[in-house]
Amino acid sequence: MTKVEYSKGLEGVVAAESAICRIDGQAGELYYRGYPISELARKASFEEVIYLLLYGDLPTKSEYEGFHLRVRTQRDIKPEILEMVKGFPRDTHPMELLQSSIAYLSSYIDHKIHHGPNCHCTSTLHQVTQLATVVAAFHRIKNGKDYVPPRKDLSFGANFLYMLKGEEPTKLDGDIMDAAFILHAEHHFNASTFTARVVASTKSTCYSSISAAIGALYGSLHGGANERVMNMVHEVGTPDNAKAWVENALKEKQKIMGMGHRVYRAKDPRAVIMEEFLETLSKEKGDDSSYQILKTIEEVVGAHMKEKGKDVYPNVDFFSGAVYDLLGIPKSLFTPIFASSRVAGWLAHVLEQREDNRIYRPTAIYTGPEGKHVTALEERS
Amino acid sequence: MTKVEYSKGLEGVVAAESAICRIDGQAGELYYRGYPISELARKASFEEVIYLLLYGDLPTKSEYEGFHLRVRTQRDIKPEILEMVKGFPRDTHPMELLQSSIAYLSSYIDHKIHHGPNCHCTSTLHQVTQLATVVAAFHRIKNGKDYVPPRKDLSFGANFLYMLKGEEPTKLDGDIMDAAFILHAEHHFNASTFTARVVASTKSTCYSSISAAIGALYGSLHGGANERVMNMVHEVGTPDNAKAWVENALKEKQKIMGMGHRVYRAKDPRAVIMEEFLETLSKEKGDDSSYQILKTIEEVVGAHMKEKGKDVYPNVDFFSGAVYDLLGIPKSLFTPIFASSRVAGWLAHVLEQREDNRIYRPTAIYTGPEGKHVTALEERS
Repeated sequence: MTKVEYSKGLEGVVAAESAICRIDGQAGELYYRGYPISELARKASFEEVIYLLLYGDLPTKSEYEGFHLRVRTQRDIKPEILEMVKGFPRDTHPMELLQSSIAYLSSYIDHKIHHGPNCHCTSTLHQVTQLATVVAAFHRIKNGKDYVPPRKDLSFGANFLYMLKGEEPTKLDGDIMDAAFILHAEHHFNASTFTARVVASTKSTCYSSISAAIGALYGSLHGGANERVMNMVHEVGTPDNAKAWVENALKEKQKIMGMGHRVYRAKDPRAVIMEEFLETLSKEKGDDSSYQILKTIEEVVGAHMKEKGKDVYPNVDFFSGAVYDLLGIPKSLFTPIFASSRVAGWLAHVLEQREDNRIYRPTAIYTGPEGKHVTALEERS
Repeated sequence: MTKVEYSKGLEGVVAAESAICRIDGQAGELYYRGYPISELARKASFEEVIYLLLYGDLPTKSEYEGFHLRVRTQRDIKPEILEMVKGFPRDTHPMELLQSSIAYLSSYIDHKIHHGPNCHCTSTLHQVTQLATVVAAFHRIKNGKDYVPPRKDLSFGANFLYMLKGEEPTKLDGDIMDAAFILHAEHHFNASTFTARVVASTKSTCYSSISAAIGALYGSLHGGANERVMNMVHEVGTPDNAKAWVENALKEKQKIMGMGHRVYRAKDPRAVIMEEFLETLSKEKGDDSSYQILKTIEEVVGAHMKEKGKDVYPNVDFFSGAVYDLLGIPKSLFTPIFASSRVAGWLAHVLEQREDNRIYRPTAIYTGPEGKHVTALEERS
């Protein structure tokens, strides 16, 4: 059979026009709706960024007041969802719970199928606000603790830490958590976002689309990298051990987690900010062990690759796990937190897809058998 | 801005190589693994077709014996899933329940993430067998009836009708239901199958991939056409009224549901078989009203389009709703039944995707704003 050429994984294939996100890989810049991520993470709140992604621009002061009231009153989950969380097997991955609960949630909301192309689904803010609540609830229940209902007076990030631990976080912890949600909210046409758009293109509900996207993020080629970085940090153990560990790993051609990125040719702008957070938190908590380990790995790997004529930089996952760790968040929640943030981007893509929709239905090259005929089961041997 | 050309909805874009399905639109033929659908629907059982799709060929007699034992012992759902079905709001769409329950089901099965590329996921047969059970259970519970556990001595189709109604169907009803599952089991790279492959390409679980695909089938551009055909039949009312109704509909340029197909230029081969089933069932049940109405619509629309120089034929959805109706199945279950059948094809695609995987990550043309800067919230007005 002649080999037909096509772009595997649709790499480089244009799937849509989009006004949501732009990545400048050469310059190492990421923009949401034209705003650089470095400014957003430092000057805006996650709730402002949700608004930006969904409505196309940052809210004015008065727009923000109404929006902020709406999202904060929707943080709490209904008793039925809490029952579902309680009934979920405790030893399984919370991503399965998230995928399931979003579809389940949909049935409790007056938000049915067959949206118009301009439907702006205001009730979908349940999804954007409640995934984080489900994650925190699952974690507490799994550990034999009571559900902590959300507080309206805290930022999205601070409230998440509050629901997780049952006590109000420090200003610094809350601010960093909120900014971490901003950093993960959107990143162009990756597999989960593309999944959300494909499902939305059938005119399915935004709930079904988001649930599907969570399924894609659950895959180890998509989510989970910061969890694996932290496994590496724990394997290294102490900063003293880092140089020898990474040199040995390079000699044995092990993959170093969190280094390099398919798109960025400069340092991932989110990694720059995450590194700052990690440095600040390390000082604040009096524990710079992970920071020192990571910086040593970055330097040794960077120098090693430079010798080979390549520049390799850390990506966002390189530092985020250590930041979460210092905030007291267990590794099993890293990808669910990613989902609780990225849901804002997914929803923006779902709404954009509807504005100028055509159902996604690519084709394939047939490589199977031809001309078969069915004989009766009894005659097959 | 210059208009950049791309193929919207990825129409005509090759997304993969695949040995599962081939459609010959000109000839009006559909093949699963090289076998024509007309032979499969008439000579094989749905369980044999599941085997064919998953393993690449029809089972021999001894292969079938082992397989058939496995799938039939997995028909029953666990008490936890039954509890979930009972707790599901009764006035919502069962597609939401299916999407949710598959992800939930996953957590109750020893079948975790990070499959190898050759993983053949034997435990995934839970999905293929249990969606139909969840559909039947939901329908009974919604109507205040008890769950009817599956029987192992009935074909897949006959058992579905048994679980739905609590009594064993006639031989004819069971055979037709089983063949209806065969007809819907696979249909190339449509949006739901593509969704399953995109999610699988991240190395997510097959459960997450199938759950996502269900979300896509829920969309009105994908599933639900046979439901709309039956709405049309009910609107027409009686065969006497059909000619006038359809002539008026054509004059008013209404879309006639179930006529024409994007791919088939001849009569959809599944429609040919469904029409036979409908004719047989109409005689058997002594009620040919829907059949007469549909045949009149087919003739009038066909003649009308021929005058315009186009050949338009019924697709599978044109007759399937009326068949289900005569089998005593309510409209709200039509798309869930579609899902309970298509799950076999989705799973075949998930397994095939893993064999030669690259994560799906297309690109997009940026059409949004540039050069924005973040000011403090207080200064925005």
